[in-house]
Amino acid sequence: MNTSGRLIGVGVGPGDPGLLTLKAIRALESADVIAHFAKAGNLSNARAIVEQYLRPELQELALLYPITTEHATDDPVYRNSIRKFFDEAASAVAAHLKAGRTVAVLSEGDPLFFGSYMHLHIRVMKDYPTEVIPGVTGMSGCWSAAGLPLAQGDDVLTVLPATLDEGELIRRFRQNDPSVVMKVGRHLAKVRRALHSAQRLAGAIYVERGTMDDQRLMPLVEKTDEAAPYFAIVLVPGRAWAA
Amino acid sequence: MNTSGRLIGVGVGPGDPGLLTLKAIRALESADVIAHFAKAGNLSNARAIVEQYLRPELQELALLYPITTEHATDDPVYRNSIRKFFDEAASAVAAHLKAGRTVAVLSEGDPLFFGSYMHLHIRVMKDYPTEVIPGVTGMSGCWSAAGLPLAQGDDVLTVLPATLDEGELIRRFRQNDPSVVMKVGRHLAKVRRALHSAQRLAGAIYVERGTMDDQRLMPLVEKTDEAAPYFAIVLVPGRAWAA
Repeated sequence: MNTSGRLIGVGVGPGDPGLLTLKAIRALESADVIAHFAKAGNLSNARAIVEQYLRPELQELALLYPITTEHATDDPVYRNSIRKFFDEAASAVAAHLKAGRTVAVLSEGDPLFFGSYMHLHIRVMKDYPTEVIPGVTGMSGCWSAAGLPLAQGDDVLTVLPATLDEGELIRRFRQNDPSVVMKVGRHLAKVRRALHSAQRLAGAIYVERGTMDDQRLMPLVEKTDEAAPYFAIVLVPGRAWAA
Repeated sequence: MNTSGRLIGVGVGPGDPGLLTLKAIRALESADVIAHFAKAGNLSNARAIVEQYLRPELQELALLYPITTEHATDDPVYRNSIRKFFDEAASAVAAHLKAGRTVAVLSEGDPLFFGSYMHLHIRVMKDYPTEVIPGVTGMSGCWSAAGLPLAQGDDVLTVLPATLDEGELIRRFRQNDPSVVMKVGRHLAKVRRALHSAQRLAGAIYVERGTMDDQRLMPLVEKTDEAAPYFAIVLVPGRAWAA
């Protein structure tokens, strides 16, 4: 194992730079290279959050997702394309590690909570030391902004990706657990229909860009259009807190 | 509404003081009063995490839980006792708010994630301005320490309090979702039995005092005694990551 090069997954929190941890800032200040994921043609949200902490001499490695919108996530073409992307991204990171550099990978929210960082982590962990700095998750940012005590006492909290099919969403919502729906984006209409079917639409809260200056937060029933960013979240209170 | 006095729920993270956010530190530096929960006779863990940021002139309000170990959480005696405690705690906080003071309530992890802060929040929010500063949760601290990518892609993550009865734990574990078991404490033997019944014991990881200097982390099958602190967590990978 090369003990000089080191991989650090850095959670940068939900969006407000004030929600960076001291440890994340120290990692950015001591890194040789920062890596960040973004769609080709887009800027990295995570990089924008930490911009004020980046030194001019820092090397940057932009990891650009392949364009995949024309394929469903269970399509083999999509799966092969994304696997190849992570293999190549891990190789690019490993080249820096091999040269003895510390590479900090910026992760919105928490690195190991539904993030891309883990795909680099599992590919390099056998050859290089790794460290994960946890961050404030997007869901914590959203329920704090809403002042909504989502989970308490003996509640079971379920965290559901909006990519699940409608029948599965309905089945999960019918369990009446307090729930967080992640990655809402283009799945908003499906999520709304599933909540309606499970009779849980009334209490649901829609949060977009939670904790950021341009945050939008409203009862989901008042969100009448279907335009939602990928990171939008829907909070669904359990029985005790439902409207 | 009195706009001078203000309540702030401050998430102080899982234990490592380096995981405090900038916003949490600023809130502590500008507060007139800090309030913290603890069992009578115990010191507040949350207070220990932030100790270096407390100014000498800061007022402190210790909120001491009634001794309740002889009652089950669904016992009416327990429920009345705990409701009375939160009513009195909220009154003590409100007296400071009425006098125009900013009261910061220290919350381990995230204030609205299975915490006591919410009981103060809902009691004073109609009369005073409130703010919630999210924090890194204990579960993020634990899976980061373990380097375990618990939830990814289309996974549904379930967060289960160990206080659930054994049959319900088994039913939930049999859904094969990646799961986090919170508040393990004296429920460790029950959690182990339920994981065994659901054939998910092999992959489970036990984490005690995650992110702290004296952290303990091991496969649950190697934890052979039943001594676990209240905040111990068990991480249960889903099918993709199971051992």
